[in-house]
Amino acid sequence: MSQKISGGVFRSDLKLADGRTISYYDGAEIKRSAVDTRDEKAQPGIGHLRLDPLVNEWISVASHRQHRVFLPPKNLCPLCASKGDKLTEIPDSDYEVVVFGNKSPALTAPSSNWQLPQINGIDTPNADAAGACEVVCYTSNHDSSFAKLTEKQIRTVLEAWKDRDAALSRLNYIEYVFPFENRGEEVGVTISHPHGQIYAYSFVPPRVEKMLQAADAHLKKTGKVLLDDVIAREIKDKKRIICQNTEWIAYVPYAARYPFEIHIAPKRSVPALQDLDQSQSEQFAAVAKESLSRLDGVFGIEMAYIAAWYQAPVNIGRDSMRLHWQIVSVRRQPGKLKYLSGSESAMGAFIMDLEPEQSAEQLKAVKY
Amino acid sequence: MSQKISGGVFRSDLKLADGRTISYYDGAEIKRSAVDTRDEKAQPGIGHLRLDPLVNEWISVASHRQHRVFLPPKNLCPLCASKGDKLTEIPDSDYEVVVFGNKSPALTAPSSNWQLPQINGIDTPNADAAGACEVVCYTSNHDSSFAKLTEKQIRTVLEAWKDRDAALSRLNYIEYVFPFENRGEEVGVTISHPHGQIYAYSFVPPRVEKMLQAADAHLKKTGKVLLDDVIAREIKDKKRIICQNTEWIAYVPYAARYPFEIHIAPKRSVPALQDLDQSQSEQFAAVAKESLSRLDGVFGIEMAYIAAWYQAPVNIGRDSMRLHWQIVSVRRQPGKLKYLSGSESAMGAFIMDLEPEQSAEQLKAVKY
Repeated sequence: MSQKISGGVFRSDLKLADGRTISYYDGAEIKRSAVDTRDEKAQPGIGHLRLDPLVNEWISVASHRQHRVFLPPKNLCPLCASKGDKLTEIPDSDYEVVVFGNKSPALTAPSSNWQLPQINGIDTPNADAAGACEVVCYTSNHDSSFAKLTEKQIRTVLEAWKDRDAALSRLNYIEYVFPFENRGEEVGVTISHPHGQIYAYSFVPPRVEKMLQAADAHLKKTGKVLLDDVIAREIKDKKRIICQNTEWIAYVPYAARYPFEIHIAPKRSVPALQDLDQSQSEQFAAVAKESLSRLDGVFGIEMAYIAAWYQAPVNIGRDSMRLHWQIVSVRRQPGKLKYLSGSESAMGAFIMDLEPEQSAEQLKAVKY
Repeated sequence: MSQKISGGVFRSDLKLADGRTISYYDGAEIKRSAVDTRDEKAQPGIGHLRLDPLVNEWISVASHRQHRVFLPPKNLCPLCASKGDKLTEIPDSDYEVVVFGNKSPALTAPSSNWQLPQINGIDTPNADAAGACEVVCYTSNHDSSFAKLTEKQIRTVLEAWKDRDAALSRLNYIEYVFPFENRGEEVGVTISHPHGQIYAYSFVPPRVEKMLQAADAHLKKTGKVLLDDVIAREIKDKKRIICQNTEWIAYVPYAARYPFEIHIAPKRSVPALQDLDQSQSEQFAAVAKESLSRLDGVFGIEMAYIAAWYQAPVNIGRDSMRLHWQIVSVRRQPGKLKYLSGSESAMGAFIMDLEPEQSAEQLKAVKY
């Protein structure tokens, strides 16, 4: 039933009552067979994509999600393991890392003849919102966090990301795979159980499209990979580096947008998560754990953040776009948030009140 | 001392104690001569622009603002008129509409030989953060709001915007003029006095650059102005129109990003605020007031919003880009906000939980 993937991790695929797949990722071979005994039915409905002709961007309209089941009471966290008659999204009584489809996904598997329409201004037709939305539970321990995971646990999360990146990339309607974590009520998170998500889009998202333009232009002009040159500058400047080991480097970027922003990248750059080799995969956890711990340490409170994996799209830019992880926090000071208001939100023009070098100093000063 | 501008509005320019200009806009000629008797000194310091090479966007680093004076206690709102020994930013004891420079601006006037550097990846040099940040007080009544202004007051605000658009556009270091309002604590507003801001940038902001690409491509392909075609579609579809008169139309856009989003545009399109003619200027207030009142009426609470004027950049796109006002609210339900998290914030890929047509129905159902 279980299958050995890389990094000594085993994957077991089972079905939830409503037909969704749940994958358990374990650091050793464990027989997984727990049955989902809830009386759940598949939630039908797919959203649709509409083109915003003012900027030629796809908007996913997911009004079918309005009818989604509300969160159960707090004593029954849906991401904890099932215990006795407390039945959660995870049928087994314990787990290491699990991945399963979101119950009310904004993006879902389309019919087999689905195709993204050609963009043609206001004459662009709508399309079914093809894609995938998955939940990644980092640990069964409700009160933990990514930073508090052991390096071994982080390795298992990484192998789950790599495995899902590869699997989703093989679907013919997927153009971009995006693992991310929203953490903290300040960014709208309503379930505090440590977890992330994976959105897989049937189009290249606007932000990635723009990155790709810059990366392609740089490759064409210099013959070099843009992120390699960006990292070379960080290494040369030194002062914004938060931590590093042989394979990975974490730094506050030269032109950070948020008061606390850390980018984490492999020094030998790769297009996507699935391309990380054994040595890179082994060394990720140490740098990830230290970076996120420093973030929590700045104000001594759990920092709200968005942690976003950027990588090459599935079918284009594999030669120019490179994998890296951007973690941004909206907290400026213990009692103060940075709000994305007029300039940032409507113009895309960011104002930073803190020098990136000052921010790096504060992160480096945290005892770790 | 006062100068008659369009719409029967008079402008009086005076100086604040620290050297900033304050402009009073009055619906009739009023002699303005109140002196700012505060002991204030000019706040030196200019921020700098850094290029983010991953997307070729300018970030404004304004660390000098950290030292900015904190807000005075609530009983002394800095945007009310001065009364007795309560000295505010507005020296006079009453006013209609005033505009003055932000005390700690993120963008400021540069030295005379300033130039925006050519973008050249990681080799792009920094530059002084040239531009302007201004405050626009809509009324001296602390407890009012834009929606509660009379049509005559809104006309005066519009004339102030037009006047500032024209004046800022004449500065040789300004490429884009952006009047906007952040309203509500949910979008980070700490002063509840009804006011907006104007940011004038020395570069074309990323969002506008993208709009310009779409507008230019449409003009080249069809010979027509994109926004004209967008509005023609809204008129044809009818169902998303919130209100209109001869000159203006307000609608929930076909591909709205936010649960409550209204775009307001002149039917005879113009590049920028300063290009609005007399008839357009006269008819703006009715549509603006009704739209914002309906927004407040949806849940019967003052709606938090960002209201952003999009227009043609100063020196390019005057033939393709067209003036319109986008008002977006992050409130989904009385107790629920829409957060910009992973997909929206990191990918630029918006997920809408409400059909734009449903949103339009709710706005139209408000009694007005």
